[in-house]
Amino acid sequence: MSDEGSKPVRIGLLGRGTVGGAFAELIADRAAAVEAATGRRPQLAGVLTRSEGDFGAILEQSDLIVELIGGTDPARQFVLDALRAGRPVVTANKQLLAQHGDELFAVAREAGVQLRFEAAVAAVIPIVRTIQESFGVTRIEKVFGIVNGTTNFILSEMAASGAGYEEVLKEAQRLGYAEADPSDDVSGADAAAKMAILARLAFHTPVDLAQVPYEGIDSIKPDDLAYAKELGLSLKLLGVAERRDGGISVRVFPCFLYSGHPLAPIEGPFNAVMVEAPAINEVTMSGPGAGGLQTASAVLGDVVSILAGDTPVHETRTELPIVADVPSSFYLHLEVADRPGVLAQVATVLGDHGVSVKSVVQRGIGEDARLVMVVHECLESHFAEAVRALGKLDDLRAPARYIHVIEEEF
Amino acid sequence: MSDEGSKPVRIGLLGRGTVGGAFAELIADRAAAVEAATGRRPQLAGVLTRSEGDFGAILEQSDLIVELIGGTDPARQFVLDALRAGRPVVTANKQLLAQHGDELFAVAREAGVQLRFEAAVAAVIPIVRTIQESFGVTRIEKVFGIVNGTTNFILSEMAASGAGYEEVLKEAQRLGYAEADPSDDVSGADAAAKMAILARLAFHTPVDLAQVPYEGIDSIKPDDLAYAKELGLSLKLLGVAERRDGGISVRVFPCFLYSGHPLAPIEGPFNAVMVEAPAINEVTMSGPGAGGLQTASAVLGDVVSILAGDTPVHETRTELPIVADVPSSFYLHLEVADRPGVLAQVATVLGDHGVSVKSVVQRGIGEDARLVMVVHECLESHFAEAVRALGKLDDLRAPARYIHVIEEEF
Repeated sequence: MSDEGSKPVRIGLLGRGTVGGAFAELIADRAAAVEAATGRRPQLAGVLTRSEGDFGAILEQSDLIVELIGGTDPARQFVLDALRAGRPVVTANKQLLAQHGDELFAVAREAGVQLRFEAAVAAVIPIVRTIQESFGVTRIEKVFGIVNGTTNFILSEMAASGAGYEEVLKEAQRLGYAEADPSDDVSGADAAAKMAILARLAFHTPVDLAQVPYEGIDSIKPDDLAYAKELGLSLKLLGVAERRDGGISVRVFPCFLYSGHPLAPIEGPFNAVMVEAPAINEVTMSGPGAGGLQTASAVLGDVVSILAGDTPVHETRTELPIVADVPSSFYLHLEVADRPGVLAQVATVLGDHGVSVKSVVQRGIGEDARLVMVVHECLESHFAEAVRALGKLDDLRAPARYIHVIEEEF
Repeated sequence: MSDEGSKPVRIGLLGRGTVGGAFAELIADRAAAVEAATGRRPQLAGVLTRSEGDFGAILEQSDLIVELIGGTDPARQFVLDALRAGRPVVTANKQLLAQHGDELFAVAREAGVQLRFEAAVAAVIPIVRTIQESFGVTRIEKVFGIVNGTTNFILSEMAASGAGYEEVLKEAQRLGYAEADPSDDVSGADAAAKMAILARLAFHTPVDLAQVPYEGIDSIKPDDLAYAKELGLSLKLLGVAERRDGGISVRVFPCFLYSGHPLAPIEGPFNAVMVEAPAINEVTMSGPGAGGLQTASAVLGDVVSILAGDTPVHETRTELPIVADVPSSFYLHLEVADRPGVLAQVATVLGDHGVSVKSVVQRGIGEDARLVMVVHECLESHFAEAVRALGKLDDLRAPARYIHVIEEEF
């Protein structure tokens, strides 16, 4: 009998930033637990940083590669090289998977080695494993949620304090919840990459980041949040991936939720993801969506699964079309002349486009008035046409503002 | 090359009740998806019911056994026989695992075959897989939550309607949320079995149902819920498993939560489980805790994992003592003579036992008064002594009533 059970597993670590550093510590701290669980003791074979280490040499000395560099270049080449050399790879790199998923999964499949990436979406919330394994043969209808903690923190703070976007962003930067250049988070691009990954897994179809339209939170005004409160709504940046008309729709957008919605109480830098399917109803998972140690824990979970000999590469098996025009309910904010008949005019324009009003708040502001309303679900294209038509009304004082709403009241 | 990839996997199904029937349908419905995911097409090799089928014959013809009979006898013998015959087993049987876990896991380990049981706790919420796999090498500090949907439905309805326990129980039975004999659910015994299983997994230590003290909800009064509302509290039947003083504490009890607590919004027949560890902060998972199709989906997820060649049997590796006396905050309901100085008397007795008052509601009722208070965290034994001492006060009109409270305000 060979002595392989007690041979250490050599891990090549690419990147020693916040997550990489935490992972290096964690693997030392939990080495005995990993050995007890898998029969193999992990040890770092080498660490590649911007200034130190040689990828080729590290690859040669490693049984498994952990990629925590981030970005697509040179991460893509490193991961491809590792897979082709027969090394399983664990990565937390959402951009890499969202932009080069087809190529990476194909190479992993050809090489017959695992590519695992729990930490790429919602850090330590085990949503990737749940979709791939627990619900791997479930016909999932919808995956949606809050997958960016920075924006959720900013929106929570704006709602609680009444402060403006710029001010709260500075606070978030001070607390470490937002980066010095926050554009990836606040534009919705980061959430879009995560939704591309989740949609691929949930629907077994290739989804590229370029197919995921996204809107961010940088144009949200404090008074939108104040009016929304009166209407019983709270604002989240939502990622939604769902089956629609034989295809799928994958999008990221700010969205109002009624207070009974399971995602409404998710505050601060937390993430939460819901999975819906007839066979499971709905399952919600929430937790910290970022953090060095939390993300490193998710990476370690993947390493352990590889050492334990878990499930092989997940195959993309179908090709579903992307459906662009989907139904939504909306919040609509209009500044109009405070004159009799204006509400009737607005309602007529909306009605002409098949848009019906669910609730309205009207408030005088000097000579003008604010009309804030929620309209029932309609095709987004119809709503966009209605907004264009409203733009032609003489009594409209400023461009209409609007935000998605999930209409379900739980 | 052998043709094993396309050989069907023959499943022996024990039990065809609500879950068994749903599983038989689900496996037929998702056979193609299972084959695509694992390379093997599942088919039912035989079904054992109370009136039909022979276990020995079914075992002989099966590659894998799904046990959905429930109860410990004859389920225990069937599962042991199957494991010893080298057949992996998937079960949804919480009583079996909570009462005979040591024996079953030992036999599975010796035989080198898998025993999987996601459906035994919180149905389709993937809490077993998450603890075993995602957090398998994480040092978990605490697992707690709402693991019985029947009682959560009853408590939600009592709080919403003000109706009494008996009335709401009848409603729950009418709607199918409670069984004709609800004693296992309402006594807390069902939740205790689930917590024994979760504690074993989380802390890698043997835990038997007999070591889990439990209280139920059958003595909860509508006015407890009404007073609690005034104090900003909502009532849940909680299961808690946590590390304490070098050992563990595993218990089930009704408990008040402040409105910001992540479990407070879980209403109706839903379950929710939280896992806490320094390396993950906290992760919360919620969803339907029962239902034939939902439970069958969890069973199918386990079957797929076995076919995909997933992780081997989880080993229990330590032996942690059970700690009986732990700190808790409490709601305390007293009926006293409405006379000057009574509150002072009560406060003195509490203070003498190291119990300090956090908030009080006092209300006159004729000649008497109700004193409803929340006390800060103290050892349960000290609180029990304080309650005994209060029982000796002349001005006490009825036995004191008390319910646990989780004091954290989120």
